[in-house]
Amino acid sequence: MDSSLLPFFSPRGVVVVGASTSPEKLGYGVARNLIAGKYQGAIHFVSQKSGELFGRALYTDLAQVPDPVDLAVLVVPSTAMADAIQSCARRGIHAAIMVSAGFREAGPEGAALEKKCLEVAQANQIRLLGPNCIGTIDTHLPLDTTFLQPPMPAKGGIAFVSHSGAFCAAIIDWSRRQGFGFSQIVSLGNQADVNETDILPMVAADEHTRVIVLYMEGVANGSRFVDAAREATRRKPVIALKVGRFASGQKAAASHTGALAASDTAFDAAFAKAGIFRADSAEQMFDWARALEVCPLPRGRNVAVLTNAGGPGVIAADALEVNGLRLAKLSDAAEKTLAAALPPAAGIHNPVDMLASASPQNYADCLKLLLDDSQVDSVMVILPPPPMFATESVADAIIPIIQSSDKPVVVALLGSELTATAFERFNLARVATYTFPERAASALGILSKRAEYLTTKTQSREDFNTSRLRDFMVNSTPDELMAAYGIPTAPIKLARGETETATIATELGFPVVMKIASPDILHKSDIGGVLLNINSEQEARNGYALLIERAKSARPNAKIEGVHIQRQIESGQEVIVGVVRDPTFGPLVMFGSGGVEAEGLKDVAFALGPLSPLEAQEMMRKTWAGKKLEGFRNIPAADKSAVQDILIKLSRLAFDHQEIREIEINPVRALKKGAVAVDVRIKLS
Amino acid sequence: MDSSLLPFFSPRGVVVVGASTSPEKLGYGVARNLIAGKYQGAIHFVSQKSGELFGRALYTDLAQVPDPVDLAVLVVPSTAMADAIQSCARRGIHAAIMVSAGFREAGPEGAALEKKCLEVAQANQIRLLGPNCIGTIDTHLPLDTTFLQPPMPAKGGIAFVSHSGAFCAAIIDWSRRQGFGFSQIVSLGNQADVNETDILPMVAADEHTRVIVLYMEGVANGSRFVDAAREATRRKPVIALKVGRFASGQKAAASHTGALAASDTAFDAAFAKAGIFRADSAEQMFDWARALEVCPLPRGRNVAVLTNAGGPGVIAADALEVNGLRLAKLSDAAEKTLAAALPPAAGIHNPVDMLASASPQNYADCLKLLLDDSQVDSVMVILPPPPMFATESVADAIIPIIQSSDKPVVVALLGSELTATAFERFNLARVATYTFPERAASALGILSKRAEYLTTKTQSREDFNTSRLRDFMVNSTPDELMAAYGIPTAPIKLARGETETATIATELGFPVVMKIASPDILHKSDIGGVLLNINSEQEARNGYALLIERAKSARPNAKIEGVHIQRQIESGQEVIVGVVRDPTFGPLVMFGSGGVEAEGLKDVAFALGPLSPLEAQEMMRKTWAGKKLEGFRNIPAADKSAVQDILIKLSRLAFDHQEIREIEINPVRALKKGAVAVDVRIKLS
Repeated sequence: MDSSLLPFFSPRGVVVVGASTSPEKLGYGVARNLIAGKYQGAIHFVSQKSGELFGRALYTDLAQVPDPVDLAVLVVPSTAMADAIQSCARRGIHAAIMVSAGFREAGPEGAALEKKCLEVAQANQIRLLGPNCIGTIDTHLPLDTTFLQPPMPAKGGIAFVSHSGAFCAAIIDWSRRQGFGFSQIVSLGNQADVNETDILPMVAADEHTRVIVLYMEGVANGSRFVDAAREATRRKPVIALKVGRFASGQKAAASHTGALAASDTAFDAAFAKAGIFRADSAEQMFDWARALEVCPLPRGRNVAVLTNAGGPGVIAADALEVNGLRLAKLSDAAEKTLAAALPPAAGIHNPVDMLASASPQNYADCLKLLLDDSQVDSVMVILPPPPMFATESVADAIIPIIQSSDKPVVVALLGSELTATAFERFNLARVATYTFPERAASALGILSKRAEYLTTKTQSREDFNTSRLRDFMVNSTPDELMAAYGIPTAPIKLARGETETATIATELGFPVVMKIASPDILHKSDIGGVLLNINSEQEARNGYALLIERAKSARPNAKIEGVHIQRQIESGQEVIVGVVRDPTFGPLVMFGSGGVEAEGLKDVAFALGPLSPLEAQEMMRKTWAGKKLEGFRNIPAADKSAVQDILIKLSRLAFDHQEIREIEINPVRALKKGAVAVDVRIKLS
Repeated sequence: MDSSLLPFFSPRGVVVVGASTSPEKLGYGVARNLIAGKYQGAIHFVSQKSGELFGRALYTDLAQVPDPVDLAVLVVPSTAMADAIQSCARRGIHAAIMVSAGFREAGPEGAALEKKCLEVAQANQIRLLGPNCIGTIDTHLPLDTTFLQPPMPAKGGIAFVSHSGAFCAAIIDWSRRQGFGFSQIVSLGNQADVNETDILPMVAADEHTRVIVLYMEGVANGSRFVDAAREATRRKPVIALKVGRFASGQKAAASHTGALAASDTAFDAAFAKAGIFRADSAEQMFDWARALEVCPLPRGRNVAVLTNAGGPGVIAADALEVNGLRLAKLSDAAEKTLAAALPPAAGIHNPVDMLASASPQNYADCLKLLLDDSQVDSVMVILPPPPMFATESVADAIIPIIQSSDKPVVVALLGSELTATAFERFNLARVATYTFPERAASALGILSKRAEYLTTKTQSREDFNTSRLRDFMVNSTPDELMAAYGIPTAPIKLARGETETATIATELGFPVVMKIASPDILHKSDIGGVLLNINSEQEARNGYALLIERAKSARPNAKIEGVHIQRQIESGQEVIVGVVRDPTFGPLVMFGSGGVEAEGLKDVAFALGPLSPLEAQEMMRKTWAGKKLEGFRNIPAADKSAVQDILIKLSRLAFDHQEIREIEINPVRALKKGAVAVDVRIKLS
């Protein structure tokens, strides 16, 4: 946590520079919100004209503003902004929110103004939020530095950090009828200074924040972001909606790895490494956030579904499966009790269908029973308007049970007018409700993912000694580099005589393969120029003589350089392992089906390097190439752990050597025991 | 269209049997809704006690009810239902809605009651809807035979047919605040008689219905359903939410095809064949339905996005890509006009970002411009509450433009309270609005799919002469069966002497492969028992002698039957083609990567047989195995059309022969020219 950012979050006094008495001006809105938002610190206004606003003096000079004041909200034209920052410096203010637009987003002139502002700020130890942002909201402090129409959004446990101010504003309005609130909202704007990575630890440390959601258009510094996010996700769940998935500017790639890494693959890998949940849509992000805010985490993936109608129960069962969850197998005791309590036509196996006649008491009794069943880790209650009862009477009956349970319960509340009162009651009671079972299932899914994430260990970057071997590259061949990192290769060596042949072959280890070395003989096997299964020094000597003789007699004019010798590698499974350097996040590692099919089949997985053993295993688990290493039907198993070892070592190598742009081993041959890098290619930047 | 079903949709008079004066009874609700719904035909009530209800006489006997009456709504206990149907017969009523529960869904006794009802009905030519359903609604006629709380849902163009009554009821309530209405609603219940397939042509023929949505738990008769749905989808779009995707009862399979076909694969294939769009969730189903109800269809996939904020524009761009759409490249003229009309910082390339200052007039002008651009096929308008204007003023400005355009426009209306009035205006004007760009993009996607579907030709089942060869199976070998359908094989024949060898080899065509035929010699190549590249009669004769001699000398005691001869098949790509008979839909055809990897890699696609050439092509397009046939990097192309031919012929063969449970060719070897079924396996039922 960076203490220079504290004035943004807990200022003792705030001054609006550019406060206005004209209600259509942003400078009016900011002033109004500070007061309407019931901010308890000192509130000051600076304007070009003196006078009064909301019963407070309008100062014409920031220097006149009395103590305490440690945060300025600057609502002045972009051309006047640098001066405004300079006046903050004179007044001893070290944090400023630049609300105004007209900077980088408006073209080169605006970019120059923004640069100037940053220079002035840095020269005076002032931190800047924005420009081109809507400011910040803290519903608990409370503090509202935005110009949005009051009231502030409802209090809640969700912190929302956004690269888009308009999206912030829309979400705030949308949230008013969705039944959730916020702890903090931070609009980042152009990020002249403070960016998403700076803000993450601040919101993670906020006592009222239980979950963090990010709307992101990019990341300033990939590895700083991953480190900060990893810190944050150990404490609180973080969900990101990262847009710009399909940015077109795909650079030309020199390797399969490069070609297969889409422009957004690195974000997926970075989020996975940082423990951030990536949402596919804004609705999904907040569906997840609401469950993570209010629900305890489940101990497992077994879900009980309680419903008063069969159809929605089947929808729920499908949706659980889609989200990686299971229908719990209820205990015999529970099923017996259900059978006794419900009509004969009711469904007592999960999903438990109490039928349309189900009363509030039925809902309460059955929910309690399901929560008490040790085979049940979480419950989805499905509540379409009961034909015979008010929906809210069911809500009233089950809310205390949900609140006192240490297992998560989410409610699928199907309807609108007949469910409106129940919806309000559930919201008030902090019960996560969703209009349809599909969304409720997605929420339960994220609770399981969060629970599982907290049980996994992550390694920190400090576990790697990143300085070692950094200078090794300059003079080393790919084979030497592989050797330095302990990745087995099958180097090819040239022998120029029988004795050298015997020495090299012994060194490489028998059996070896021998091939005539001649630039003039392309199809070596056509002239008998390849010998397999050479098993001893004597055979190697004889082989040398034989190959030279055959070559000379078949191609008398060919230039013969000698004989190439390579350790003979047994057959095995072939996979591809590669790393491409992502400009934002660094080494992006790929594993998958190798050979020529690599790009056609696209059976590949990516992760951000350097890899932990768990991450390497996860990559293999995701691909057919990885599964096949365990053996499949008549395909024998290969040495999976040797492949894992190469994956980890190559990721480490690429991490250590920033000058490697792409490195790829295609194929790695996985043997019964061991694995060998058969063909290594490196492209430096 | 089945005229016996007309009384359900346009009765001249309706009688409620079991009408009740107690407001908590279903028989009260049905009576109330007939009147509250303003049904214009005759309304009659039959009850156990005489009296009056809603100013009408309560008859104690159906026989007393005067004309006209041709539809009965039966709200009597399940045990009294058969008698009620009998009394309908006596009164000359030929259509009855059985609202009551207590039948098949309640166990064996209920099932017996249901059977009895059906028998009585069939003996008297009475069509039954239900039991255990909530009845029907027609908002235009109008007619409401349900017991749901009035008012009826809003009028609209969506027909909703559902296997779940509770889901119907919940959706009706939900729709009230979603801004869409219905033309017809049909709750099918237990489907003792009338099922989803019967109803489809009825709702497709309804003049007020523009789109049909189905909530389905299964299908009674697969091929009837596909035929009826194909008819319906040529006229009107049909969307299905089919639940029970992950039914566990997976049967043991004898083939890869059987093992890979999940329990729900056949539904995907059937929907594809019938032109039904399968929705993943209830919300998606109605998101799609609303666009299909009100929007014209686009001519292509190029979408323009108009926004007043960058963030939601990027969200939209991502979502378009996910839905198979493209950002339109605007014409130079359009971009020039935009540049002149908007501030310098505005984004004039698609997505067009007018900035937060955009006025209603800006929205209107730019929308008009985009719709006039011939490069634009459809438009998404993104409308977060504009900071300076009321959202509804933008709605008012753009509604006339949307209404007069022949290109589809959908609106992403981000917010709730600040957008509430605009939402109402858009709904009134029949403009499809969505809370977020992601859902708006999904709606535009389905419009494109619908437009493309209408341009494709489908073949009808009648194109196939299904009687031919039906009896061929009984005595035929797999090879003969393949030959009868023109699928090339490589049969293995046994020769018992030199002359026979020469004859068979000539017949098969050179080159041939010859192998010693002996049950006692397992590893034939170990004793030189395999000869490749036999190219002439004389070589074949010599080969026979050689093989017999080698076998006798290597294994003097082995029983030698002669020599197996097979046409030598060149190397090529190997694929799998199989058919498994689905109990509901019949032949389910699979194509994909063959050999041992078939089940591991799961690179397969399914479709319902018999296949048209287009369907076969689509299956190949979906898989890596199919793409590879066109050649990839150093993998040479193979004869794709020969593989397509085998796919079509095998699908036809399985369709003709109902007794085939599974048939699989693994592999089909695709050659440079032609393709050969190398290994054919058949399992009969």
